[in-house]
Amino acid sequence: MDFLVRIDTARVHELPTDELEDITTRERARGRELMAEGVLRHLWSVPGRSANIGIWSAADADALNEALASLPIRPYVDIDVTPLATHPMTAENPAT
Amino acid sequence: MDFLVRIDTARVHELPTDELEDITTRERARGRELMAEGVLRHLWSVPGRSANIGIWSAADADALNEALASLPIRPYVDIDVTPLATHPMTAENPAT
Amino acid sequence: MDFLVRIDTARVHELPTDELEDITTRERARGRELMAEGVLRHLWSVPGRSANIGIWSAADADALNEALASLPIRPYVDIDVTPLATHPMTAENPAT
Amino acid sequence: MDFLVRIDTARVHELPTDELEDITTRERARGRELMAEGVLRHLWSVPGRSANIGIWSAADADALNEALASLPIRPYVDIDVTPLATHPMTAENPAT
Amino acid sequence: MDFLVRIDTARVHELPTDELEDITTRERARGRELMAEGVLRHLWSVPGRSANIGIWSAADADALNEALASLPIRPYVDIDVTPLATHPMTAENPAT
Amino acid sequence: MDFLVRIDTARVHELPTDELEDITTRERARGRELMAEGVLRHLWSVPGRSANIGIWSAADADALNEALASLPIRPYVDIDVTPLATHPMTAENPAT
Amino acid sequence: MDFLVRIDTARVHELPTDELEDITTRERARGRELMAEGVLRHLWSVPGRSANIGIWSAADADALNEALASLPIRPYVDIDVTPLATHPMTAENPAT
Amino acid sequence: MDFLVRIDTARVHELPTDELEDITTRERARGRELMAEGVLRHLWSVPGRSANIGIWSAADADALNEALASLPIRPYVDIDVTPLATHPMTAENPAT
Amino acid sequence: MDFLVRIDTARVHELPTDELEDITTRERARGRELMAEGVLRHLWSVPGRSANIGIWSAADADALNEALASLPIRPYVDIDVTPLATHPMTAENPAT
Amino acid sequence: MDFLVRIDTARVHELPTDELEDITTRERARGRELMAEGVLRHLWSVPGRSANIGIWSAADADALNEALASLPIRPYVDIDVTPLATHPMTAENPAT
Repeated sequence: MDFLVRIDTARVHELPTDELEDITTRERARGRELMAEGVLRHLWSVPGRSANIGIWSAADADALNEALASLPIRPYVDIDVTPLATHPMTAENPAT
Repeated sequence: MDFLVRIDTARVHELPTDELEDITTRERARGRELMAEGVLRHLWSVPGRSANIGIWSAADADALNEALASLPIRPYVDIDVTPLATHPMTAENPAT
Repeated sequence: MDFLVRIDTARVHELPTDELEDITTRERARGRELMAEGVLRHLWSVPGRSANIGIWSAADADALNEALASLPIRPYVDIDVTPLATHPMTAENPAT
Repeated sequence: MDFLVRIDTARVHELPTDELEDITTRERARGRELMAEGVLRHLWSVPGRSANIGIWSAADADALNEALASLPIRPYVDIDVTPLATHPMTAENPAT
Repeated sequence: MDFLVRIDTARVHELPTDELEDITTRERARGRELMAEGVLRHLWSVPGRSANIGIWSAADADALNEALASLPIRPYVDIDVTPLATHPMTAENPAT
Repeated sequence: MDFLVRIDTARVHELPTDELEDITTRERARGRELMAEGVLRHLWSVPGRSANIGIWSAADADALNEALASLPIRPYVDIDVTPLATHPMTAENPAT
Repeated sequence: MDFLVRIDTARVHELPTDELEDITTRERARGRELMAEGVLRHLWSVPGRSANIGIWSAADADALNEALASLPIRPYVDIDVTPLATHPMTAENPAT
Repeated sequence: MDFLVRIDTARVHELPTDELEDITTRERARGRELMAEGVLRHLWSVPGRSANIGIWSAADADALNEALASLPIRPYVDIDVTPLATHPMTAENPAT
Repeated sequence: MDFLVRIDTARVHELPTDELEDITTRERARGRELMAEGVLRHLWSVPGRSANIGIWSAADADALNEALASLPIRPYVDIDVTPLATHPMTAENPAT
Repeated sequence: MDFLVRIDTARVHELPTDELEDITTRERARGRELMAEGVLRHLWSVPGRSANIGIWSAADADALNEALASLPIRPYVDIDVTPLATHPMTAENPAT
């Protein structure tokens, strides 16, 4: 199932510079893994904000929670999760 | 997975009396089926409100959506869904 | 550019049955056109709600506004639009 | 009577590492006691959040307040309490 | 236990005049009974509003719910319930 | 006239331990005086919260403000004040 | 004591034209009386809104409630009341 | 001085078709006059909404209120007004 | 034109004692000047809050902004400004 | 396309004095460049607040995001972005 996930990263930017650089590198690496695994399906920035909006796919809330917990920045972010259901129009057109 | 579901039924009570009686009977019957199937796990009333709070179990958001769509009162209610993940303390004690 | 668009369709369901059937048919047809044109990129239902969440692509806000105005149900829906910017991780991986 | 209780634990994670480990161990022990006593009936994590949602049973608000005050993390959490009443469908099916 | 209960009665005043008079008479009678029984302990008007704020005493949420359901105006009001716990200063001074 | 007063005391608990003990002792003493004077009429705790809800009586907002300013914890609390008017049912039954 | 009172009059304008004219005339007359009595001390319009903001003086909440209840438009308005206390700078300069 | 004005026109679209056409024509004419007078300085649509956001210039709130009251759709719209002050960077560059 | 101005002064009270005394003295002096100039027309305290509500008069938003910027406590306060228009009843009775 | 952008600069004023002076100088310089480039079209202060409201023009959300990221104060501000569409009345009068 898919989830709309908004991650507010403002507190990450309060870390000391070297810690921020290190965590950003590790976060990008973990993000690429989650993309390769098809968990992190789409990702956008929110203009003017330290926040991103993404579409995540996971078997259920436990699997999503595990994926979010694996993010190096997890202790410094606020996350909002909205569960999504298949729309009838997408169901008839599953390749989308 | 489990969901916390709050259903506000205020608009149901604006139906004409006979329609209200009929839909209540059918709603109770469907609710008992969902309970028997283990979908509707727990259900409470909100004191002083035309609303209930329940714990629903379904494979994913699509299965939950289907269960909610099967409620006779569905067109007259407002529903809020919160996805729930297994808590570590419950995981060690799964019989709960 | 992409937009996160949430459309609340609760008022559509207050239309008389025949009008509702007719507008739903026309809405589906228009939706398929917008999908084929790559304007309506992804679409989900919000569990338990008469609402959908989609990712829309348009050159700018005017083009998006025109696409939304072309929806037959436009007079009966409430729409929230969030502009999205390209995320650095998506930029390095544009095929996603 | 039952209560829906949401506990936000974000501030707990701001404690120094050793204090955090100690308080987590004591919290788990106290939680198991409350579960064994039938006070803490059900418990879930909120995906992506440092928060849990639980169903608590207590004779009244005083008894609930006492149970919550016994949590080692009590000084570092924000708690929302919603009182719950028995639903007619549960009343006819008390074993649930 | 005590509850802080706010009842918004604005919709009652939309009833036809004779129905409004009848329901007001019956509501006053039921209110006096609940006061005599010690359920409705204190009651105030909210200045400038069609609303009242009261302190209600009941064994638990079920008993409160039953008392509120017995109000003739129940179908036409919106009710907010806040559970209250005994304050340490009141506990030492129970006659208050 | 009566006021519904909610006092959030969360910041009081951030004081150093000895200062907290001292201020709590003085607060209790002042609270007992206000109760004896009939200013602080009723007082409850909010379950799970560092907050209390009370019914205060004072000639007007100036007298209430003076009473609240006399609380030793005043610099560390957030206070919400709702003015209350006599309800017609209480007016006919003034001994309540 | 003084109160800041905001009155939203949007629903008044939904009355039939002749009823609206009649109630407006009576409202103006009652308003002038309350001004002459020193109850309605200051009155402004909120730009772009069917609403007014005023400073009202009354002995207490009961007296204010009575004054507001005397307004012909009372059944059709929403009213917010904020109690005001004397500011130290005004106290030293009472003629203001 | 300038004002940021948001006008929600959703209720206008509930008018009967011929009334809607007539009021739209008159609204456009009045809008062009206010633009020519330099009162309505800039105007945009809110994508997906029956709402517009504009920059209005008027000597003060009374003059703005008069301009807004002159709009034919005034009885059917909700208006939010935010007063604006000259920014130091604009002050040094007044031709902007 | 008049403005309803609410100033929240909670952060002022976090200043060191001597700085607080000094800024309070200077604030009172500046306040008296603004009152003498007819800019600060009326001022009240909000009961139980570190906040005041006032009626300010200034030619426009720039003049108001300048007056507010002249307050010694300006860097430590949060200010909400509501523009006010002349009410028809006040217009007919300008001496009020 | 145009964007309504509100920038809250309160945290900038918590910087040490020399850092504040330096960043203000650089911010003004960057602001003048963005004005010269036609990106920052209009700018106002919010009376009584450390905040500004502006009209920004950019090809899309990415271009806007880049412009906002170029502001020296970017790490210390909170930004709200509202996308704007061309209004029919402006479309017929493009020189405005």
